[in-house]
Amino acid sequence: MAIVVQKYGGSSVADAEKIRNVAGRIIRAKEAGNQVVAVVSAMGKTTDHLIEMAHEVSDNPHQRELDSLLSTGEIVTSTLLSMALRTMGHRAISLTGAQAGIKTDATFNKARITDINPRRIQKELENDRTVIVAGFQGITDNLDVTTLGRGGSDTTAVGLAVALGADRCEIYTDVEGVYTADPRIAPEARKLDEIGYEEMLEMASVGAKVMHSRAVELGWVYNMPILVASSLNDNPGTMIHGGNSMEIKNKVSGIAHDPNIAKITVQGVPDRPGIASSIFEPLASAGISVDSIVQNASVKHITDLTFTVASTDEKATMEVIKPIAKEIGAKKCLSDATLGKVSVIGAGMQSGPGYAARMFKALADEDINVELISTSEIRITCIIDKEKVPQAVQALHRTFELEGD
Amino acid sequence: MAIVVQKYGGSSVADAEKIRNVAGRIIRAKEAGNQVVAVVSAMGKTTDHLIEMAHEVSDNPHQRELDSLLSTGEIVTSTLLSMALRTMGHRAISLTGAQAGIKTDATFNKARITDINPRRIQKELENDRTVIVAGFQGITDNLDVTTLGRGGSDTTAVGLAVALGADRCEIYTDVEGVYTADPRIAPEARKLDEIGYEEMLEMASVGAKVMHSRAVELGWVYNMPILVASSLNDNPGTMIHGGNSMEIKNKVSGIAHDPNIAKITVQGVPDRPGIASSIFEPLASAGISVDSIVQNASVKHITDLTFTVASTDEKATMEVIKPIAKEIGAKKCLSDATLGKVSVIGAGMQSGPGYAARMFKALADEDINVELISTSEIRITCIIDKEKVPQAVQALHRTFELEGD
Repeated sequence: MAIVVQKYGGSSVADAEKIRNVAGRIIRAKEAGNQVVAVVSAMGKTTDHLIEMAHEVSDNPHQRELDSLLSTGEIVTSTLLSMALRTMGHRAISLTGAQAGIKTDATFNKARITDINPRRIQKELENDRTVIVAGFQGITDNLDVTTLGRGGSDTTAVGLAVALGADRCEIYTDVEGVYTADPRIAPEARKLDEIGYEEMLEMASVGAKVMHSRAVELGWVYNMPILVASSLNDNPGTMIHGGNSMEIKNKVSGIAHDPNIAKITVQGVPDRPGIASSIFEPLASAGISVDSIVQNASVKHITDLTFTVASTDEKATMEVIKPIAKEIGAKKCLSDATLGKVSVIGAGMQSGPGYAARMFKALADEDINVELISTSEIRITCIIDKEKVPQAVQALHRTFELEGD
Repeated sequence: MAIVVQKYGGSSVADAEKIRNVAGRIIRAKEAGNQVVAVVSAMGKTTDHLIEMAHEVSDNPHQRELDSLLSTGEIVTSTLLSMALRTMGHRAISLTGAQAGIKTDATFNKARITDINPRRIQKELENDRTVIVAGFQGITDNLDVTTLGRGGSDTTAVGLAVALGADRCEIYTDVEGVYTADPRIAPEARKLDEIGYEEMLEMASVGAKVMHSRAVELGWVYNMPILVASSLNDNPGTMIHGGNSMEIKNKVSGIAHDPNIAKITVQGVPDRPGIASSIFEPLASAGISVDSIVQNASVKHITDLTFTVASTDEKATMEVIKPIAKEIGAKKCLSDATLGKVSVIGAGMQSGPGYAARMFKALADEDINVELISTSEIRITCIIDKEKVPQAVQALHRTFELEGD
């Protein structure tokens, strides 16, 4: 019998009625001949509410304690869903992350899964039970509870699918799948039937927040097919896989965007070995994610270094950077948080010529100035005025003819 | 260094401010030179709220799932209290029942502690941390989460005190200790400085709901001194112990009462061996607690059997009893749920004469009719009209001169 791992996000289990709806979907998957393992998130705004409670007793809640606190949100959902299934006449059992055998390192708040021992789940499945697993959590060798960071339930689901040798992992959410662009901005955006892991990663990391990047990476490493679909209807969704289909290769898959980007420029940096790491290592230690990095050609061993961060990190970045700039003898630090980014993504772009040129022309035709450019094998990203992001997304969607089939 | 185990009930940790107040109390106990382990209940009405959620998805929530669900309430409190302590500059760590090494049988909803492995707690105490344990819960050999039944946090606290070889167990609650009678009914009621385990059990089981009977029993078996006191002030509270003090022996300690009693009478029961068990075994199986049992003298091998149950169990009792009465050839089943009980409790009553006579005279003087009498070594209980319970408590309190010191 095929094993299917399903994941239901917080909005899909926000109240008793929605939990019963999810139970119905699980029963249908079971009756279609599958063994089902369902991973659940905390109900609705539960996690935010627990974080609020923590901040009522502490300005800076201790991370180990916070993880133990937050883990209760997913446990609540898992037990309620199991009860609902039993009331509907189906055998079911809920398991916490610890009971499900999910071992992690001790990096509280953003733990990494080190190992999954699927024995208990397998035993329950053999016993004809549907297994409901509290997502987002695991346990260390010292039996301390950890959480996997926001969106970690996706990672739990893909990890379990891999450990159980499941046929596929199904991520049910409040969107219908992965779109060629954000439909709120580009109304003609089209749902993709399939997408490659790498393209999905680029789509996710540049703003099309459909599922957690770590989960996609994990699926990629173990070649686990991941279906992203709506928990509210039976539309087919988007299959993320590593297959070699015509649609995946040689084509632009979609336009991603993020309207909240800050550009940081360190002017007059002495161009000598180790300078870049002296700037970026302290930022990494401070937990600040740096995106595009551009270094101008050096003139007389002096260069300018420009990079982008999330605009919410602008202040923290400047606080870290200023003393360093002084120390290394740089001239000045500048920041601009009025920016956004648009990206064209597609596995075929590396081999096909002219994608970048078409992108720049489309933006120029709209009178949109490009502040910074960065590229990967399957992505071209332009940093632009944040106000012009919607206009850019629409123009690029038209230019690369994504609305048609 | 002395180990003290403290327990804080739901009303003592109902919000962030109360949690900070409890943190302050723990710090004072620590600064007085103790190693402190604190056991906490779920905040305020959390448990009731979780039960409501369960009933929204299931008419009859599965017991294993319900235990896993309810256990989250105490985990939330324990993490918040640990955060509050850390924020106040003190080393602390929260542990779930499982992490604290509390093993139970698999009787979900009312599990019994089978063993406590205190190694983790000892390690944390050696590491100079105050340990906050989520009360009311444990884990089976199969790693399933159990709960110990309502009031189980008291049992967790006394159990841990025994396992850790603590100096004493302190139960902090919203009352100031054990009183000679319910102060809402007998305004002249006086707080006891100390009371014996057995007397405390009688006080608790007949209505003076200060702490869970199982916890008192456990304390008695292992001779663990238990202090019951208010979490809101520093008044001394009541010490429950097995000591041989003058105050405990040879005296009436208090008056207990319960206004919700139903009397069941099975008339015309053939008086032959095994008849009583054929009636009371099915009641025990149905989870109905039978209190006083009286069997009249047999006339021509026919007798009447009378017993009392909580008035909330009246209907269920009659449903169980009626078919049995028919089967054994009894004449009739009657029930009366308009009753209550008052008890006079004191370790010295067995050896001192006249207590029963004084009790009956006091009730007669108030024109209160006694429906049923039952006694133990340290208790005399009368079943009376429920409307007259307050009047009876006041009269008995005066008769046995409990208001004085």
